[in-house]
Parts: sequence; C-alpha cells; structure tokens
Amino acid sequence: MYSFQQIQELVDQQFNSLDFVKEPTGLYDPIEYALSSKGKRIRPTLLLMASNLYMQNLDNALNPAVAIEVFHNFTLIHDDIMDKADKRRNKPTVHKKWNPNTAILSGDAMMIKAYQFMHKYQGVNASLVYRLFDQTALEVCEGQQYDMEFEEMKQVGEDQYLKMIELKTAVLLACSLKMGALIGNAPENEAEALYNFGKYLGLAFQLQDDYLDAFGDSEVFGKKIGGDIVENKKTFLLIQALRKADKSQKEKLNYLLEKETDEVRKIKGVIEIYNELKIPQVTEDLIREYYDKALKAFNSLNKTENEKKNLRHVAGKLMDRIH
Amino acid sequence: MYSFQQIQELVDQQFNSLDFVKEPTGLYDPIEYALSSKGKRIRPTLLLMASNLYMQNLDNALNPAVAIEVFHNFTLIHDDIMDKADKRRNKPTVHKKWNPNTAILSGDAMMIKAYQFMHKYQGVNASLVYRLFDQTALEVCEGQQYDMEFEEMKQVGEDQYLKMIELKTAVLLACSLKMGALIGNAPENEAEALYNFGKYLGLAFQLQDDYLDAFGDSEVFGKKIGGDIVENKKTFLLIQALRKADKSQKEKLNYLLEKETDEVRKIKGVIEIYNELKIPQVTEDLIREYYDKALKAFNSLNKTENEKKNLRHVAGKLMDRIH
Repeated sequence: MYSFQQIQELVDQQFNSLDFVKEPTGLYDPIEYALSSKGKRIRPTLLLMASNLYMQNLDNALNPAVAIEVFHNFTLIHDDIMDKADKRRNKPTVHKKWNPNTAILSGDAMMIKAYQFMHKYQGVNASLVYRLFDQTALEVCEGQQYDMEFEEMKQVGEDQYLKMIELKTAVLLACSLKMGALIGNAPENEAEALYNFGKYLGLAFQLQDDYLDAFGDSEVFGKKIGGDIVENKKTFLLIQALRKADKSQKEKLNYLLEKETDEVRKIKGVIEIYNELKIPQVTEDLIREYYDKALKAFNSLNKTENEKKNLRHVAGKLMDRIH
Repeated sequence: MYSFQQIQELVDQQFNSLDFVKEPTGLYDPIEYALSSKGKRIRPTLLLMASNLYMQNLDNALNPAVAIEVFHNFTLIHDDIMDKADKRRNKPTVHKKWNPNTAILSGDAMMIKAYQFMHKYQGVNASLVYRLFDQTALEVCEGQQYDMEFEEMKQVGEDQYLKMIELKTAVLLACSLKMGALIGNAPENEAEALYNFGKYLGLAFQLQDDYLDAFGDSEVFGKKIGGDIVENKKTFLLIQALRKADKSQKEKLNYLLEKETDEVRKIKGVIEIYNELKIPQVTEDLIREYYDKALKAFNSLNKTENEKKNLRHVAGKLMDRIH
C-alpha cells in the first residue's frame, strides 16, 4: 500500500512530467499556465487512493487521474469567463491574462486533452470508466447552468441549491473515487459506496465553504471573510436566512443586499441577521449530517482500518477547517 | 450495399430520433436548436459510406456518425462566439439567440454529448477510433487558433494558410472517412487512403469556397458575392494577391482594404486586381491539384466501381460548384 506522502508524490510527478509546449503556443500555453498553479489536486489523489484499496500497482490509474484533474481545470477556465472572475489561485485568470476567445478555445482543447488521457486507460472496466466520466462531465455542466440561473432568480429553494452544489462540485469528487474503484476492479457495491462517500463529502465541503465565508477564521480559511456577502451570492446561508426571516428581518436583509454600499457595514449587518436566525447552527447541522452520511458509506467498505487510513485522513483534512 | 438515398435517410432518421429535451432546459435547448438546422450532414454521410465499403450492416457505425456531427456543430457554436457571427444557416447563432455564456456552456455540454455517442461504439478498433477522434478534435482547435491569429497578422504565408484550412476543415472530413473504415475493419492502407481522400477533398473544398466568394455565381453558391472581400478576410485569393502584387497594385489593394468604404467599389476593385494577377487561374490550378490527389487516393482503394459509386458521387457533388 502507498503512503499518503507517496500518493501525493505520484500525482505531482505525473503532472511535472506533462508537456503541453506545442504549436500553436497561443493555444497550448494557456493550458500549461492553468495547470501550473497546481491547487490541491484532490481529485487525482482520491482516485489513486480508491484504486489502491483494490490494487497494489497504481500505474494503470495514473492517466485517468490526470484526465480528471485536467477536466476539472478546464471547467475552471470556462467558469471564470462566465463568472467574470479576475483571479484564480492568486493569479490572473486565463481570459484576463489572454482574452475570452483564447480562454474558450484553450479550454476546449483542454477538455479534449482530458479525454486523450482518459483513453490511454484501456484496462478492466474501461468502457464503464468512460461512461462514468461522460455522465459526470455533463452533470458538472448542468450544475454550472443552475448556478448561473440562480444568479438571475429572486428566490432559490434549499433543495434547488443543494442539487446545484451536488452537480457542480460533489459529483466530480464522487466520480474520482468510483473511477478509482472501477480501475481496481472493486465489487460494484464498494464502487457505489465510494461514490456516495465522495458525493456527501463534496456536499459537506461546499456547505462548509459557504459557512466559512461568514463565520470562518480568515487566516485558516485563506480567503477574506464576507466575500460572498458583498457579492450577494446566493449561498446556503443567504437562502436559509431569506426563508426564515420575519418581515422586519427581511426588510433589513433586503436593504443590506440592495442598498448598503459600505462593505464592512454590509458584512456585519448580514452576519448579525444570520446569527439571529441561528443560520450557523442550521448549517453546521447539515454539514454534520452530510459528513456522517459520507462516513457511513466509507465505513461500509470491506477493508481494514489500515487500508482505509489514507482516505480517512483526506476526508478529515477536508472537513477540519471549521472547528 | 446501401444506396445514396438510403444512407441519407439513415443519417436523418438517426438525428430525428435524438432527444435533447432535458433539465436544465437552459443548457439543453441550445443544443437541440443548433442541431435542428441540419446542414448537409456531410461528415456522418461520409463515415457511413466508408464503413459500407467494408461492412453491410451499418448499425454499429451510427453512433460514431452522430458523434462526429454533434462535435462539428459544437465547434460551430464556439467559433461563432469567437468570430462574433450573428447568423448561421440563416438563423441567429446560439450566442445571439441566448447569450455568450450559454453558448460556451451548451457548447461544452455538446462536446461531452459527442463523446457519449462515441463511447457507445465498442466494436472492432474502438480504441483506435477514440484516439483518432481525440487527435482530430485537437487539430480542429489548432486550426481555429491559427485562423484567429491570422486575423491579427499583416501578412500570412501561403503554406501557413494551407496548414490552417487543413486543420480547421480538412482533417475532420478525413477523420470521418477513416473512422468509417476502422469501424468496418478495413486494411490499414485503405483506412489511410480514405483519410487522404478526405483531407485533399477538404482542402479543395475550402479553396473552392474562397474562390466562389469572389468568382462564384451567387445563386449557385448560395451566398452573397464578395463577403470575404468586404471583411478583409485573409483568403487564399488575398494572400496570393498580396504576394504577387507589384508596388502600384499593392498600394491600390491596401487602399481598397483599409480606406474604401463603398462595398460595391471595394469588391469590384479587389476582383479587378485578382484578375490582373491571374489569381483565379492559380486558385483553380491548386483546387484541381488537390482534387486529383483526393481522387488518386480514392482510386487506390481495392473496391469495385459499384461499391465506390456513393463516395464518388459525394466527392463530385462537393466539387461541382465551380463549373
């Protein structure tokens, strides 16, 4: 079995050995650039760890692991155009550093590259692997579509919101884990359990992100507090607050969202209402509920604690930002 | 063997049976819309005809045929954003009818749908089929990148231009034919000959398009004459003219390109220079050269004239717009 450290090295090695420098450089340089600010590479890590539960040599899993991460980074490039985001991982986004056309086309090429890596895998369950990837990739697009539609809506339902983050964030984590299992030729019920583990972990993680924007310690969280509030982003917290607020709280909230121009006052005011409405508790409860579901799926795996320790560790790290 | 008519019916049936109506409709309706203005569907037609040279039942070739056409229509949606095109097949382009974000995201989903159709094929040479598709898809992006770069360049070389149209247009036709051959388990040299047939046919076709913009009969051509000239598009004709013009012709040409605001005078003036420089003849010669190469590759196929007649007919139809 690989250690946590070894898996991380394997992922980094794999990405360091990629070479996208090719003509026309106007097409390929942005791909190189997007992948060079590496992020956590959580998806390939999860994939390899899931495979490692069922096979000892991970060589066959490397290309799918790269494929998933390249695909994920492609979605970031296109999402950043749509969201008009200027920065990503503290660097200018591709459409800012180059221009929107380049970001569209290099993103397209990047998705094709992801498929190219995926198709290098021709081992056991290959066609299931491809189909899982296609299905998940479509769902990620659906999630982004809902996210954009929500921006234009006055009120978003809690269920709608949870469905959106499931599609936009959770299913790709779930897919990474299930794909690792398929490559390791795991029993079907274990592959499904790993999918659910990833899905609920993703849901818990995304809700935690919403929570931390308002109630996090900015040093631990790594982002400025209140960014979502300033942008009127329809997070789980705001959706809950709009639903639970009484008439006077709703008026106050709407004033803050629509009229308050002082950022500090706006953040402070919204957080005050969140606290009045016990939004932090409600959110923590749901995060806990999802995390418990994730662990329940994980615990159902017919594996020793030692075999499971890498994935348990990653799950813990993903969730330890709150307390 | 299928008749020409039967192949066309098969393609149309296949597209009529597709159903993209699905939630979120904001994502899937534009896909339905883009595929509803059907175009010539030349790529799936070529694929099925190539398969039919080597196998009698075309069922297995239908999904890859759909995949190629869906992919092609995806590229049109994204190209139209980049080129700021308002109309496509006499209807508003997706980014005009909806908006650029929708066109980006629905385009992405469409490319994934193309892969979904491709992966339904799991017959002989499946992994070669996938790899050919990936490689070609990347080349199409490279072609679009060169095309965009050329817009910003003062002078484009003849070789650069021919490489661009090969990537942007010819390789997908070549891929369609070769893929059909691979699905039919054709001998390698025949699959390669069909690739070259498609490639040279594509090159001849695109040059013919450039030619017809200036020298076509607008009723036969189906487009207004001189559109490329008005837009200063760096066609083969203009690239040749800029290369061959003497000092006074170059001055006149530059005046027409940069200063002439009257469209009719501009078109007339540029065509006059083209004629002085014998650009029509040079272009016709190169079209003929490519068409001959296409036919040479085609004639090398170890098939009877009867078996070949569908593809010969299509090639003839593609090229009969000049004389």
